Amino acid sequence: MLPTVNLRPPFNITRASHVVLHASDLARSRDFYVKIVGLVVTEESDGECYLRGLSEACHHSLVLVQAKGEATCRRIGFRVMFEEDLDAAFAWFKAQGLPADWVEVPHQGRTLHVADPIGTPLELCAQMKTCERLYLKPERFTGAHAQRLDHFQTFAPDCRAACAFYGQLGFRNSEYLAHGDKLLGAFMYRKGTCLDLAIVENAGPKLHHFAYIVPESHHIFTACDLAGNFGYAEAIDRGPGRHGPGGMLYVYLRDPDGHRVELCDGHYQTIDIEIEPVRWDAASLSTNVRWGLPATERWYFEATAFEDTPTIPPTQMPKPQTLETYIQQRAAVKAA
Amino acid sequence: MLPTVNLRPPFNITRASHVVLHASDLARSRDFYVKIVGLVVTEESDGECYLRGLSEACHHSLVLVQAKGEATCRRIGFRVMFEEDLDAAFAWFKAQGLPADWVEVPHQGRTLHVADPIGTPLELCAQMKTCERLYLKPERFTGAHAQRLDHFQTFAPDCRAACAFYGQLGFRNSEYLAHGDKLLGAFMYRKGTCLDLAIVENAGPKLHHFAYIVPESHHIFTACDLAGNFGYAEAIDRGPGRHGPGGMLYVYLRDPDGHRVELCDGHYQTIDIEIEPVRWDAASLSTNVRWGLPATERWYFEATAFEDTPTIPPTQMPKPQTLETYIQQRAAVKAA
Amino acid sequence: MLPTVNLRPPFNITRASHVVLHASDLARSRDFYVKIVGLVVTEESDGECYLRGLSEACHHSLVLVQAKGEATCRRIGFRVMFEEDLDAAFAWFKAQGLPADWVEVPHQGRTLHVADPIGTPLELCAQMKTCERLYLKPERFTGAHAQRLDHFQTFAPDCRAACAFYGQLGFRNSEYLAHGDKLLGAFMYRKGTCLDLAIVENAGPKLHHFAYIVPESHHIFTACDLAGNFGYAEAIDRGPGRHGPGGMLYVYLRDPDGHRVELCDGHYQTIDIEIEPVRWDAASLSTNVRWGLPATERWYFEATAFEDTPTIPPTQMPKPQTLETYIQQRAAVKAA
Amino acid sequence: MLPTVNLRPPFNITRASHVVLHASDLARSRDFYVKIVGLVVTEESDGECYLRGLSEACHHSLVLVQAKGEATCRRIGFRVMFEEDLDAAFAWFKAQGLPADWVEVPHQGRTLHVADPIGTPLELCAQMKTCERLYLKPERFTGAHAQRLDHFQTFAPDCRAACAFYGQLGFRNSEYLAHGDKLLGAFMYRKGTCLDLAIVENAGPKLHHFAYIVPESHHIFTACDLAGNFGYAEAIDRGPGRHGPGGMLYVYLRDPDGHRVELCDGHYQTIDIEIEPVRWDAASLSTNVRWGLPATERWYFEATAFEDTPTIPPTQMPKPQTLETYIQQRAAVKAA
Repeated sequence: MLPTVNLRPPFNITRASHVVLHASDLARSRDFYVKIVGLVVTEESDGECYLRGLSEACHHSLVLVQAKGEATCRRIGFRVMFEEDLDAAFAWFKAQGLPADWVEVPHQGRTLHVADPIGTPLELCAQMKTCERLYLKPERFTGAHAQRLDHFQTFAPDCRAACAFYGQLGFRNSEYLAHGDKLLGAFMYRKGTCLDLAIVENAGPKLHHFAYIVPESHHIFTACDLAGNFGYAEAIDRGPGRHGPGGMLYVYLRDPDGHRVELCDGHYQTIDIEIEPVRWDAASLSTNVRWGLPATERWYFEATAFEDTPTIPPTQMPKPQTLETYIQQRAAVKAA
Repeated sequence: MLPTVNLRPPFNITRASHVVLHASDLARSRDFYVKIVGLVVTEESDGECYLRGLSEACHHSLVLVQAKGEATCRRIGFRVMFEEDLDAAFAWFKAQGLPADWVEVPHQGRTLHVADPIGTPLELCAQMKTCERLYLKPERFTGAHAQRLDHFQTFAPDCRAACAFYGQLGFRNSEYLAHGDKLLGAFMYRKGTCLDLAIVENAGPKLHHFAYIVPESHHIFTACDLAGNFGYAEAIDRGPGRHGPGGMLYVYLRDPDGHRVELCDGHYQTIDIEIEPVRWDAASLSTNVRWGLPATERWYFEATAFEDTPTIPPTQMPKPQTLETYIQQRAAVKAA
Repeated sequence: MLPTVNLRPPFNITRASHVVLHASDLARSRDFYVKIVGLVVTEESDGECYLRGLSEACHHSLVLVQAKGEATCRRIGFRVMFEEDLDAAFAWFKAQGLPADWVEVPHQGRTLHVADPIGTPLELCAQMKTCERLYLKPERFTGAHAQRLDHFQTFAPDCRAACAFYGQLGFRNSEYLAHGDKLLGAFMYRKGTCLDLAIVENAGPKLHHFAYIVPESHHIFTACDLAGNFGYAEAIDRGPGRHGPGGMLYVYLRDPDGHRVELCDGHYQTIDIEIEPVRWDAASLSTNVRWGLPATERWYFEATAFEDTPTIPPTQMPKPQTLETYIQQRAAVKAA
Repeated sequence: MLPTVNLRPPFNITRASHVVLHASDLARSRDFYVKIVGLVVTEESDGECYLRGLSEACHHSLVLVQAKGEATCRRIGFRVMFEEDLDAAFAWFKAQGLPADWVEVPHQGRTLHVADPIGTPLELCAQMKTCERLYLKPERFTGAHAQRLDHFQTFAPDCRAACAFYGQLGFRNSEYLAHGDKLLGAFMYRKGTCLDLAIVENAGPKLHHFAYIVPESHHIFTACDLAGNFGYAEAIDRGPGRHGPGGMLYVYLRDPDGHRVELCDGHYQTIDIEIEPVRWDAASLSTNVRWGLPATERWYFEATAFEDTPTIPPTQMPKPQTLETYIQQRAAVKAA
């Protein structure tokens, strides 16, 4: 039931690379990502802060930009393999009638701004300034020791259409969530693990979350403890828990502007083409498929808008079992 | 505000030792404790199953007894240091006008059945048959690798009175929960860690839970994963989370009969008498003091009755912030 | 100083896939890999046992074959992306005057046997029968919970020549070990982590070890504990320790026939082409670059021969600092 | 074969409490214990630095004193339960003809200096200034997160005599090491775990090491990584490994003055008197009983002298299998 994937795509996107977020108070947000998530500041300048995970050699996987207005997401970035992939991408997006503009971005090589058909603002580049990997310097570790950016999850008003679009670009499906013939969630990858981009049907485009990998399961608890100690107990948006699709341990945090960041442990290797995507039936899907309480309504429905990007509602809004409806149902059962 | 502790008690209780529970289906309950919690079966006979943790040298810390009627808790057991402590205990309970009876219990030395003033059935012994500690035999490990029984938590209709009673027996307070002058929870120990017996004000006597120590934080997740895989996802009663009092990581599970078992990682050392008990203010206490969602109503109010033991309500029922009330409050705030 | 890497190789090898080893006692070796390493048996038949890691969806990453004579390594296997890559590989090896033969291999798609210029026997295929991933079934876990095959390390008499050969096939260098202009070790990858194939200069071709990833650092200790309990304490060949190149935690075990298997935790992500390989200077290299005692002579010099494959000595044998020479030096210093 | 233990000793020593060490460079040693071991500085003054573990409520478990001459150990400290235990101890030591002197020690209550029959300088007190436990403040954590002082290991020229002496004071044996009728090592405790004081037969009195508990096994690796990064790779004296007696995971480090500190994970609960001490046969004892290489000669024979305390050789020096003799034996076997 999944759309076709082009295994020989017109250009080679290799991985989720970085996200650019507005922050209403740059210092406060930087502290959140450094002290709780465990990112390191590569460079900080007037109105911008560049951060990376402990094992990342590239200059930034998170860019915080001082917000002037609403704290939206400016762009999500992907890497391509070669410079020539950028040219091929430019041509391809133009041929589709989609936006494609060359831009200058500090610390990155040639950079291309494009958008998918629903307007999700994407940034592609083939090179970035490099830095020392710090994953073997425990004397520098803070927070939950986030290692590297892993993936994005976005909302799209038509999950199948979005999945088909990214399938043309070579994004393959590791797992997916469906109800009958209706595709509700697509877990897609380029880099040989489960995920670079997860797309869930909901009013979009929006950024539901971006995720960093932490090295071991105990770091999930460390993130929670630090969130509590630094006044972000309420910012734990969901978890800790075990994912259904993908099966990772996770916790979701909301940063000071409400942007959602997930911390999860590593996942399995994909790569081989004979392996079938794993189907999850939405009818059986609560927030925690494997164990635990369902996610709250806010986890399901709140997400970060993209800058200057209107959102489109799906033809049918998702009706997941939330914590709120679960509690009501249990009360009703008890009363009966 | 805490009742006086007798640091030279009339007899020497050394630690929480074991719990005797009725099980409506012995094999099913044994499987739960072996496959999820990770206990080992020391011995199993007609209608009884004796289990212990991986690092325990004593014959049993959990006894499952085939229930004929309701699946209650028969008794909670404590160890005393010497045989003569049993005689002193007998005399002391008799002098208080409390029950005290010598009984024969398999695999234990001389055993004394006593009860506290509200009828909590206790069992004291100074010796038990010994077995091999299995904590260095990973080839034998199952479940969440529970190491040893750590503590009990009971309900008492008057927490202060119960705390005063056990204080006479030398139980010291590591931490406690109060609202103004009202004591709501007492975390008491004999063995030099935080806990052997926690007493919470509620209709009692009842057994709220008993707790086993797991070696590392990742075992908390293992317990959840196994609970999910063996059909006990709904049996995860609370957590994983981080305690306020004591500060342990925890998860609570309900066994097939609804008996609640906690798995938690280790805790700090007490012992020294100059250290003041830590006070927690109930006004600020939600289910997870440090982070996470409040506990559900069922976690606060459901507990195992003791066999043939009527319960007494407190003068005022506790009104904790539950997950249910929290969700309602949040909905109300949002609506406003 | 490294040979050129062809970033657009003639065919697309995607990853290290599997290893075929002779075992003088099949049941004993299977038990070793199941009970200590933690592999699962996918299938076992007359004289052959197919095993895989817990997160592997492919039928086998280790094949044990009942040895008739010497317990050699039959082949190391790599995956290619598409069936057509096999045809391209066939043509390419033939064009180089290297062996290339189509063979039938159970549970694999079309399979190609080739050899590199020094005779290392390689096996390529694009497809394998698939199985359930078991990484979320802790009730099935044994041993050290090995997740997936990660890489091979081979000996080659001329490391630079071997590195150049695999560079033509698109293997990139994450890190390398050199002494002045002399390349002594090349850590090469295809799959976007540090390693698929490490090549060290020594009499070869030989298989120094193959490596499985374990999920967390504590599993390294579990492997040691189980090795000890099952009578393989002497089989711990090196470690636990922290690698210099790559930086992984590791332990090396020798299986019942002396084949060496490494267990290591995960490693960093490579992928991006602007990142320079990390150079290690052999002059400063002891067995454990970061901490710990040097590796023993047997770790440096013992390796598994490939079936029917003569070995060629290097022009100059390596002279690493071994535990043996280190102990001697220390004794000499003390005596002086 | 073990000497009698007095289960109702003349005064109540409760636990190993603190150690006072000379440091030739106070700042360097403080950095070692803070950045690698993970202790926190409670207070630092002219020539003295007081440190404690993360979960300790008492003012200090390690006191570093600026050395004027040789960097010896000044004293090892134990806690007693009550002030009156100090008086009983004073009387008892005097009655034995052993030294006993009241002294003033900053941050401690009344303090008694005593010595055992071979001159090991001991310090007893019943109270200490208290501080905040920091074990739930990950934002303050450094190093290997050492939680609390666990035990001392000393050398005594006659292990059996020393064991008998401490047995009179109520120290019980969890495990012991013997060769035939000869006691070579006694692992003794007061606090209900395996160890407060281990005594090994060798020229003494000397302090072989003191040990801190780390929370989880991964912290053992963190200690090694930090030791390497801070220039103390050579200071890793033994391990990581798994103990025979006690069964803990461990690593031993040498501080800048060569004082040896062990980091180990937690151990099993003792307390019950019916449990027999575990015997280890020295004939089968290598450095790592369970797995790994034997310990080096320096680990076996180097130890910290006590200040102004002459050492006495044993009647027979121990002849353990060291790494050095093991390597020689293996070379001899190979040559044969």
